[in-house]
Amino acid sequence: MKKRAKSSIRERFGFAVKSRREELGLTQEEFAERAGIHRTYISDVERGGRNIGLLNIERVADALDLSIAELLQRAK
Amino acid sequence: MKKRAKSSIRERFGFAVKSRREELGLTQEEFAERAGIHRTYISDVERGGRNIGLLNIERVADALDLSIAELLQRAK
Repeated sequence: MKKRAKSSIRERFGFAVKSRREELGLTQEEFAERAGIHRTYISDVERGGRNIGLLNIERVADALDLSIAELLQRAK
Repeated sequence: MKKRAKSSIRERFGFAVKSRREELGLTQEEFAERAGIHRTYISDVERGGRNIGLLNIERVADALDLSIAELLQRAK
């Protein structure tokens, strides 16, 4: 789950979301509420288990106070 | 379809994809083949009609010779 090298875009995206959420001191629950997305969905995303779509990527980025490009930059 | 101000992320993403594809001088057909995605799906994406998921965003960015962050930067 935490391997970085050659991990998939889903895993790298999940890792970026989780890191940023923790940087902001938010629990998954607080973050989910802020993003308007169910907590279990957020949990799946952070574990790299979701092929999240553009609309939810935008919600997640907004809730993390990042532009989508900035968030994806962290998922490199 | 082409309105820029306050357009949705799907529209802005579609516009960025189309602009970059044209910049590279690719037809939708050539681009679709390069991305390994069906041409009608590409057409839908360019028109802002698809909530494209992370895996296909990655394929599209690769086929456009951009990082995902660079592509999303153009969709601002």
